[in-house]
Amino acid sequence: MIIKHYEDVSSAFIDNDVAKGVHGRVMIGKNDGAANFCMRVFEIDPGGHTPKHSHEWEHEIFIHKGSGAFLNNGRWADVRPGTAVFIPGNEEHQIKNKGNDTLVVICLIPKGVPEL
Amino acid sequence: MIIKHYEDVSSAFIDNDVAKGVHGRVMIGKNDGAANFCMRVFEIDPGGHTPKHSHEWEHEIFIHKGSGAFLNNGRWADVRPGTAVFIPGNEEHQIKNKGNDTLVVICLIPKGVPEL
Repeated sequence: MIIKHYEDVSSAFIDNDVAKGVHGRVMIGKNDGAANFCMRVFEIDPGGHTPKHSHEWEHEIFIHKGSGAFLNNGRWADVRPGTAVFIPGNEEHQIKNKGNDTLVVICLIPKGVPEL
Repeated sequence: MIIKHYEDVSSAFIDNDVAKGVHGRVMIGKNDGAANFCMRVFEIDPGGHTPKHSHEWEHEIFIHKGSGAFLNNGRWADVRPGTAVFIPGNEEHQIKNKGNDTLVVICLIPKGVPEL
């Protein structure tokens, strides 16, 4: 059993032309012995957002803290702590922080794709 | 994209000889089109606990709310919101609520095993 808090795991800061204010961590991945799927935690700063993109693999997401919105078929849908989001493969998506606090989301991906 | 809050998903109540005060929900499963892994949310009432058991498949868990402990090699390890837990297949485990509020955990499993 591996037990760790996300605040104790080092993060990568992603801030570029397409993503703003995103801190990403692999929480449970292949280095932990996870053979089938991978858990990451993303913190998104107030005003920040992930890239608008799509890829072959799916996301299973859970909102832990904060107030955000997901781009869903060209419209923004609000999410709050306790909301789960399933994004099938090849579907365009983007997440933005709509609040004044950090948005914290858990995002899982299948094996065989980049963990971060 | 499928967006739903866990409080809006009906739950199954599990309270028997081996589990006490557990409310389980499938949030993202095969009926949603999730082909590779499944997200469940479990609420555990104050004083409640999951069964002490093991099975072939792994768990990837994230603590969303509350105060709990995980049985890990015969000893109880405390967890709090933001803690992630990886339980490899065939490892004995149990979760208990140590607090006065509901313990809410996200628990993911691979495809091909019972979703709840």
